[in-house]
Amino acid sequence: MNVLPHLKSYLCATKLIQMKLLDGKATAIAIKQELAQAVKDRKAAGKKIPHLAAILVGTDGGSMTYVAAKVKACEECGFESTLIRYDDSVSEETLLRRVQQLNEDSSIDGFIVQLPLPAHIDEMKVTLAIDPKKDVDGFHPFNVGNMVLNLPGFLSATPAGIMELMHRNDIVTEGKHCVIIGRSNIVGTPLSIMLTRNTNPGNCTVTLTHSHTQNLRDICLTADILIAALGQPEFVTADMIKPGAVVIDVGTSRIEDATKKSGWRLAGDVKFDEVAPKCSFISPVPGGVGPMTIASLMINTLKAMDLKGK
Amino acid sequence: MNVLPHLKSYLCATKLIQMKLLDGKATAIAIKQELAQAVKDRKAAGKKIPHLAAILVGTDGGSMTYVAAKVKACEECGFESTLIRYDDSVSEETLLRRVQQLNEDSSIDGFIVQLPLPAHIDEMKVTLAIDPKKDVDGFHPFNVGNMVLNLPGFLSATPAGIMELMHRNDIVTEGKHCVIIGRSNIVGTPLSIMLTRNTNPGNCTVTLTHSHTQNLRDICLTADILIAALGQPEFVTADMIKPGAVVIDVGTSRIEDATKKSGWRLAGDVKFDEVAPKCSFISPVPGGVGPMTIASLMINTLKAMDLKGK
Repeated sequence: MNVLPHLKSYLCATKLIQMKLLDGKATAIAIKQELAQAVKDRKAAGKKIPHLAAILVGTDGGSMTYVAAKVKACEECGFESTLIRYDDSVSEETLLRRVQQLNEDSSIDGFIVQLPLPAHIDEMKVTLAIDPKKDVDGFHPFNVGNMVLNLPGFLSATPAGIMELMHRNDIVTEGKHCVIIGRSNIVGTPLSIMLTRNTNPGNCTVTLTHSHTQNLRDICLTADILIAALGQPEFVTADMIKPGAVVIDVGTSRIEDATKKSGWRLAGDVKFDEVAPKCSFISPVPGGVGPMTIASLMINTLKAMDLKGK
Repeated sequence: MNVLPHLKSYLCATKLIQMKLLDGKATAIAIKQELAQAVKDRKAAGKKIPHLAAILVGTDGGSMTYVAAKVKACEECGFESTLIRYDDSVSEETLLRRVQQLNEDSSIDGFIVQLPLPAHIDEMKVTLAIDPKKDVDGFHPFNVGNMVLNLPGFLSATPAGIMELMHRNDIVTEGKHCVIIGRSNIVGTPLSIMLTRNTNPGNCTVTLTHSHTQNLRDICLTADILIAALGQPEFVTADMIKPGAVVIDVGTSRIEDATKKSGWRLAGDVKFDEVAPKCSFISPVPGGVGPMTIASLMINTLKAMDLKGK
């Protein structure tokens, strides 16, 4: 921490680097306004409006928050939404039958099954049961394969949201070295592929790192773009950052904070206060990647309706 | 080139590095012998033996050579094989109908459509028409997605062959930095994913590079494992190699060679003579990755039969 005052004064003095916040909240609002306009236009033309359904099992705090945010986003965009709730004790069979009904229900354009599911339900079996044409989370292997091969399909919402956040903030990715920390199926791995492809954003040289990586700090120090998606609060510190890097923080963990009424606060994977002064761009937590994930889901839902129309 | 004698003498003197050839030909023979034994056992037990079909369109020299090698490998393994040939002028419709017949023919366990196809045929349409359960090339998006998610399915033959080659030569990959040159859908991209997963081989830190990568030489110099899959003859030179690295050469190009009767010879993406002395392991061209690709296809065919039996 004692490096901070020195760095700040250096940066202020030289004005070599001016940190800019990657405001995911504002970007997501802009996207939702565009979607709302598209829906108004459709309504005016007498066309169907997008309809997203969500299945929520149990009463996990995080899951309830996420699903509520998705329903709210639907309202903001003028989409229809349907929330289907089950008790923790729901059988796999009942859930699979409901998925099948949603697959066949032509009024529903896309739907999600909020993860995690209770231990007695096979998550992959449920994911595989979703019609890839309605799989707006982009978790079905067919959609994952389409993403790899750059074919039409649904991109997983969080990595797609990060791509959109970079795009709308004019971040140059071509030829840049991007280091991703964390190889999860829903963030690190798909993002590594999206950023490698011959697209814009894209054409990055991507290094995907994980728990078995050696010399992680040295690798991070070579990153023009550093993406932290490992789920360890405040893991990324200032000594891992190349001056002027773009830093994107995907983590959202609850950590104890005695100064808060609730006793906790939301923390990212990046130690924001000490990292921010070294960056050209940084996404905060909350208000960075989170809102973009939901905006992506809305984009996918509109796309699902368009695909169906064909 | 003038660095070579110096290097060689240094290496001989110090014996710090003893280069070992990754003999794909010998490894593939061992695999085919194991498969032949498995087929014998099946025959003795009165069970069905694997049956691979291949569709070849036109008379492209490379394609004819590859398909002939696949048919020969089937013989060596004791598999049945069926070669279906069409003239260059075959319609997309006829080809798609034949694919559908092979999907439905229960005597065929797996099949491939040799690429490239003539320009008037949509390759992706043909790939998508193949039943993923018989897609032993592993090119269908559903199989690509299964690979990313580490679910059962067919792994694309060339990257799977490279994984097997490393495995059977006891190359340690965990925690190593692997640099891949070339992001193709059939080699570089899937290999980058396979090597990143929590498997053995696997758990590498992978950097995927391509035509937009900056400072490629510097990146290559950090590689414990360097995989050249860009399709540019003799692109990788000694000055790009960290001493003691494992080098795998996926390229196979025909280059002019006046000393040969044919006027050409096969060249890899690596300048073998000058790179080899710096390596701990290196795969030659020919006799490295090529035979392993075909061995992988045989493994996939046996797997296709096993999957069908379930």
